[in-house]
Amino acid sequence: MQPSFRAVVLPAALLLVLPAAVPGDDPPLRGFTTAGAKIEREWETKFRAVPEPARMREAMRRLSLRPHHVGSPYDKDNAEWLRAQYASYGFDATIERYDVLFPTPITRVLELVSPTRFTAKLEEPALKEDPTSDQKNEQLPTYNAYSADGDVTAPLVYVNYGIPADYETLERNGISVKGAIVIARYGGSWRGIKPKVAYEHGAVGALIYSDPRDDGFGAGETYPAGPFRPKDGVQRGSVLDMPTYPGDPLTPDIGAVPGAKRLDRKDAITIMKLPVMPISYADAQPLLAALTGPLAPSSWRGGLPITYRLGPGAARVHLKLAFDWSLKPLYDVIAKLPGSTFPNEWVIRGNHHDGWVNGAEDPISGQVAEMEEARALGELVKQGWKPKRTIIYAAWDGEEPALLGSTEWVEQHQEELRQKGVFYLNTDSNGRGMFGVEGSHSLERFANEVARDIIDPETNASVAARQRASRVVDGNKEARTRSDLRIGALGSGSDFTPFLQHAGVPTLNVGFGGEDDGGIYHSIYDSFYWYTHFSDTSFVYGRALAQAAGTMMMRVADADVLPEEFGNLSETARGYIGELKVLRDSTARAIEELNRELSEGAFALVNDPRRPTMAPKGSAPAPVLNFAPLDNASIALDTAAARFEKAYGSLPAGAPSAASLAQVNTLIRQSDQVLLLPDGLPRRPWYRHSLYAPGYYTGYGVKTMPGVREAIEQKDWKLAEAEIGRIAAALLRESDLVTRAAALLEQATSAKPIP
Amino acid sequence: MQPSFRAVVLPAALLLVLPAAVPGDDPPLRGFTTAGAKIEREWETKFRAVPEPARMREAMRRLSLRPHHVGSPYDKDNAEWLRAQYASYGFDATIERYDVLFPTPITRVLELVSPTRFTAKLEEPALKEDPTSDQKNEQLPTYNAYSADGDVTAPLVYVNYGIPADYETLERNGISVKGAIVIARYGGSWRGIKPKVAYEHGAVGALIYSDPRDDGFGAGETYPAGPFRPKDGVQRGSVLDMPTYPGDPLTPDIGAVPGAKRLDRKDAITIMKLPVMPISYADAQPLLAALTGPLAPSSWRGGLPITYRLGPGAARVHLKLAFDWSLKPLYDVIAKLPGSTFPNEWVIRGNHHDGWVNGAEDPISGQVAEMEEARALGELVKQGWKPKRTIIYAAWDGEEPALLGSTEWVEQHQEELRQKGVFYLNTDSNGRGMFGVEGSHSLERFANEVARDIIDPETNASVAARQRASRVVDGNKEARTRSDLRIGALGSGSDFTPFLQHAGVPTLNVGFGGEDDGGIYHSIYDSFYWYTHFSDTSFVYGRALAQAAGTMMMRVADADVLPEEFGNLSETARGYIGELKVLRDSTARAIEELNRELSEGAFALVNDPRRPTMAPKGSAPAPVLNFAPLDNASIALDTAAARFEKAYGSLPAGAPSAASLAQVNTLIRQSDQVLLLPDGLPRRPWYRHSLYAPGYYTGYGVKTMPGVREAIEQKDWKLAEAEIGRIAAALLRESDLVTRAAALLEQATSAKPIP
Repeated sequence: MQPSFRAVVLPAALLLVLPAAVPGDDPPLRGFTTAGAKIEREWETKFRAVPEPARMREAMRRLSLRPHHVGSPYDKDNAEWLRAQYASYGFDATIERYDVLFPTPITRVLELVSPTRFTAKLEEPALKEDPTSDQKNEQLPTYNAYSADGDVTAPLVYVNYGIPADYETLERNGISVKGAIVIARYGGSWRGIKPKVAYEHGAVGALIYSDPRDDGFGAGETYPAGPFRPKDGVQRGSVLDMPTYPGDPLTPDIGAVPGAKRLDRKDAITIMKLPVMPISYADAQPLLAALTGPLAPSSWRGGLPITYRLGPGAARVHLKLAFDWSLKPLYDVIAKLPGSTFPNEWVIRGNHHDGWVNGAEDPISGQVAEMEEARALGELVKQGWKPKRTIIYAAWDGEEPALLGSTEWVEQHQEELRQKGVFYLNTDSNGRGMFGVEGSHSLERFANEVARDIIDPETNASVAARQRASRVVDGNKEARTRSDLRIGALGSGSDFTPFLQHAGVPTLNVGFGGEDDGGIYHSIYDSFYWYTHFSDTSFVYGRALAQAAGTMMMRVADADVLPEEFGNLSETARGYIGELKVLRDSTARAIEELNRELSEGAFALVNDPRRPTMAPKGSAPAPVLNFAPLDNASIALDTAAARFEKAYGSLPAGAPSAASLAQVNTLIRQSDQVLLLPDGLPRRPWYRHSLYAPGYYTGYGVKTMPGVREAIEQKDWKLAEAEIGRIAAALLRESDLVTRAAALLEQATSAKPIP
Repeated sequence: MQPSFRAVVLPAALLLVLPAAVPGDDPPLRGFTTAGAKIEREWETKFRAVPEPARMREAMRRLSLRPHHVGSPYDKDNAEWLRAQYASYGFDATIERYDVLFPTPITRVLELVSPTRFTAKLEEPALKEDPTSDQKNEQLPTYNAYSADGDVTAPLVYVNYGIPADYETLERNGISVKGAIVIARYGGSWRGIKPKVAYEHGAVGALIYSDPRDDGFGAGETYPAGPFRPKDGVQRGSVLDMPTYPGDPLTPDIGAVPGAKRLDRKDAITIMKLPVMPISYADAQPLLAALTGPLAPSSWRGGLPITYRLGPGAARVHLKLAFDWSLKPLYDVIAKLPGSTFPNEWVIRGNHHDGWVNGAEDPISGQVAEMEEARALGELVKQGWKPKRTIIYAAWDGEEPALLGSTEWVEQHQEELRQKGVFYLNTDSNGRGMFGVEGSHSLERFANEVARDIIDPETNASVAARQRASRVVDGNKEARTRSDLRIGALGSGSDFTPFLQHAGVPTLNVGFGGEDDGGIYHSIYDSFYWYTHFSDTSFVYGRALAQAAGTMMMRVADADVLPEEFGNLSETARGYIGELKVLRDSTARAIEELNRELSEGAFALVNDPRRPTMAPKGSAPAPVLNFAPLDNASIALDTAAARFEKAYGSLPAGAPSAASLAQVNTLIRQSDQVLLLPDGLPRRPWYRHSLYAPGYYTGYGVKTMPGVREAIEQKDWKLAEAEIGRIAAALLRESDLVTRAAALLEQATSAKPIP
């Protein structure tokens, strides 16, 4: 443990004058004095000139040359090479190792056994055009990690996306999945939700296939002629119940280091309880074509040239899966540039390095940008730049199975992160198009400022201007009038989750995308050949990502006052409260209406005797909820945010000491920590953030103010009422923190500078 | 010409006391005195017991035994048999013959000539299960009637549904159809719109195919295993520009009788100006698969297992079509039961008898219900029932090509209809499910009253109760609170068009449907086998239709005061005015927003250089329109309707003479005539109704207050302003007529009965 930065004595030279807008000058830089801003801008300009597309291309070629999943030889080889690269840039680079449960397949059998026989191929063929596609000996077979072992033969039922609403439709059609194997298509939720919900409804096995309408010829020309999923392509992926907790299932809350106390596998609640397997649309077609029973509703029908039916009829399927459940090693690459002024304040950047197979797009397209950022920062250090705060560049291992590398590292270092964590900036895959930002809304204004400084390579406008135009054209008129573009809230799906939702580190996740699409996700075709033919082929968006992310890192690392702003956070929270009220009211109205229709016998009247359906089930009427605690907390946060921003704006008139600002920064960097719920979320205490969580029944998709929102969705009104109180308390902690920060800022403005 | 019924001296015995609600009694019957209602109800009850499903089944078998399109031997045979049947029921039945232009194919060639060769089959194979499917010698080949002759070879472009908005999308993608052959899928508009819009954009040929997602295996099991369109099934159909005028293209406005003045074919503006051909999805697949060019937008993609592209690329198509343009005979069957009291008031019922091939569903499923109605009325006459007004049962020929039989008859008899027309009731195909009603909104209350008296065969509830439940379950809450269920407005697509929209006869169109679906429309598979396996197989909905339609006919024929009610009409018109205001405002806002985005350069900013698109074109800002004339006319009609209804309700206190009521009825039956526009609609004077017309660019789909609505849609603001005035004048004529009718009713209530 290093000493807390609060004890560090600041050199007298660090006198600060915070910015006042000077006409004709650069716009003020949030977090910097006018003088500091000038220096910062000069270094940032130098920084942004360094990243080179050609180097990214070469690094991608190297890192995606062989399959590099957790436990593979090339995963370790990449980690060691990455460590050496980060070291060569001037970073203090090490590898931190963890040993985690990561199952790999031993047996995979899928057969239709009646009314006809068909054995699924379960193989992605090599393509002569794609030179890395033939590395069969090193490729992980197609499978879902953390499926249960199993050997089941059962009727097959088509469940659409396999989300809870789909089971209501099945029930209305009189179809149960009890004792059946379900077949779901990818989409509509994160994949792990599908077997979890199937299990809750009594299924004994699950198949997940890529439907060609969403992800195949229906979406565009297939690989290798085009970028989309070919008929035998399969989306591998984890089905660990990550909405309960991510990371090694045997070591929740602690780092999976040697000697760590591990659960018995049978006690690890996140491991899927039925066998589940992903398949291609070529393998799915004979299974789906064998189904009889009611016609699938029109929104359930995909792109295969068959009539989609619900089943089950005579179609029976045999699914046999067995896995090697041994522990595998993880290699996190951790590269540090020590802070010159606040070495115990950590500004952290991460992108994973493991892939499901060759993983050129996912994750190497982000990793190569991260490398170029680090190299450029190293160049700046050689030219004399010294970041005030410690910069940590991480290349995570094991993101694909369960955010393993980041989660174990955060769990291992959680006390340090509580004391030192200032900012976490995540990337993952990158492509061409619009700049996307999601994360802590206290960083919304900061993200907007940076976006105005990054040039879009296709239009030469700022990426902010392009974002804005894109939203306006898509019908979002607020994008024209609101000075800051809104950023999204974070659910899950990448390594930001443990930082933001478990440790409370202010977090952003950024990347470019939207212009290219494709269907090689988690397949052997996510390759250097694919990426360099169908995505950011010239790596100019890789450069733009390095410029954007590196600028964010520098600006936080060097800031005199951390760039958080709380007005947008408060406005966003108020918006969420409004959504919850609307959700309660619309749910109450829907219950009331359905109960009325049931009492009127409307479903019996509309029933078609040739295709009979069951009436839906009624519910108890919804009580009115007391939202006053949230409303009052929201008002308090509004007031605090306004006071903070006023103090922030009047700072230049004073001459605050660096020491007084350090106290302000100590508070600011805790602004997500105080939003954590002491006992975490209902059903899943690992998730602590009161505002953001992945949905328990959606997976990656975010639920904002999740405690209340999901309680309303589940019609658990008592829980909703209790969670309103807990979120309100978190918002009051936030408003208290912001008020204290504002008071310190006010004092600082009237303080005399240190002589 | 017969004398006007105004001169008829009423027998003194016809003393009328109009209804007062008696608790515990039958509900009052609109249009009848209490005594009259009792008698009417007794006759109606007797009537509804007569129609027999077994007879309908047998009649369908007979009428669909061989192909019976216009000009075919079996079309004439059916007409003669129908005439004899109606005569055997006691009707005075004749055949009225017209000679019309109806082209039939001589040459049909469709080939892909590059990059590969493929010759389209253009044939529907016979199926061993379906005994009428092998009558190839008598079947009309697959074609679009009133296509131009042509022999063109040109690049192919996919235009989605081929409606105007689709061409905006093509333009944004930089694709022109000038000199090209377009391929459009069925759906999104009436088929004739597709070649018309293609021609307007410079295309030289058009193909229309049935996409399997909408109409094939994607919608359900295909024939003969299920009811949906098999791969070689083709939807024949007319492409005459019927939104300009229906009927014989050579004799607009006049009956196509021998010696009628005929246009030269080249001057007949409704004949399509390019060659156009319908094809199956089996024939379409190789053509669509040959297209290159930009990916089709996701909403344009259908159910074929290919990647949908816009074209054109190297795909070139050869289309050669030649037709026999000789005149063909039409045989309308006209069967009359003379009115006992008002022989010169006509209550008309129609359903066509011609089909594209065997036409079991379309139109025989409706025709057999009509026959059973007529037979039942004949039975009643034998038992002593005498309809007050003349009842005319018509079996129209030539509906399929262009509403030929009904249009020529209406044009031939238009002066008589002006003087005698009281009501036209249309049916066409019939199926299982909900009762559907569309038509004159002055008949909305009447239609609701009848629907409460007809029993749904599947639920034993009234068809009104089932309709209501269906709407409530579909989210239409007004259906629960409004005493009358709304009826739809009529566009086109069946024989009601000339009656309502040209002659101004108050009209309803009714039928059952919604529970069965299928894909045999206008193919050789619309057969007795298909209907008796997949639709109203036991003909219980055929019986329900006969009961509903026959009850309507009896009730109008016997009414003491015609059942029109004007409050619902007025409320409906007010609703349309509201929609027009919303349309003007949303169009104005869209223009303003688009112009702003153009001036901001937003489209350049969001453009993807790898898939460049053109910015859409801006428009001049929309002026504010003066809706005051419509609002004032609406207020006047409201007032008149309320006065009429009050007079109607207080009638029982008086003892009106039949003569005074005859004057009221004379006004009431003109209530759609006064809504006709003296000069008809812009661009298409044949269509005269101010409230209802088929859309100029949608075909069957209705445009309400079409003059204003279409002018706004076309951004022709000057025309919109002028049309507001014309529709307002029509509504003022209506309010004047209703006021006069109310005044007569008021006088009638205080008049002494004729001694």
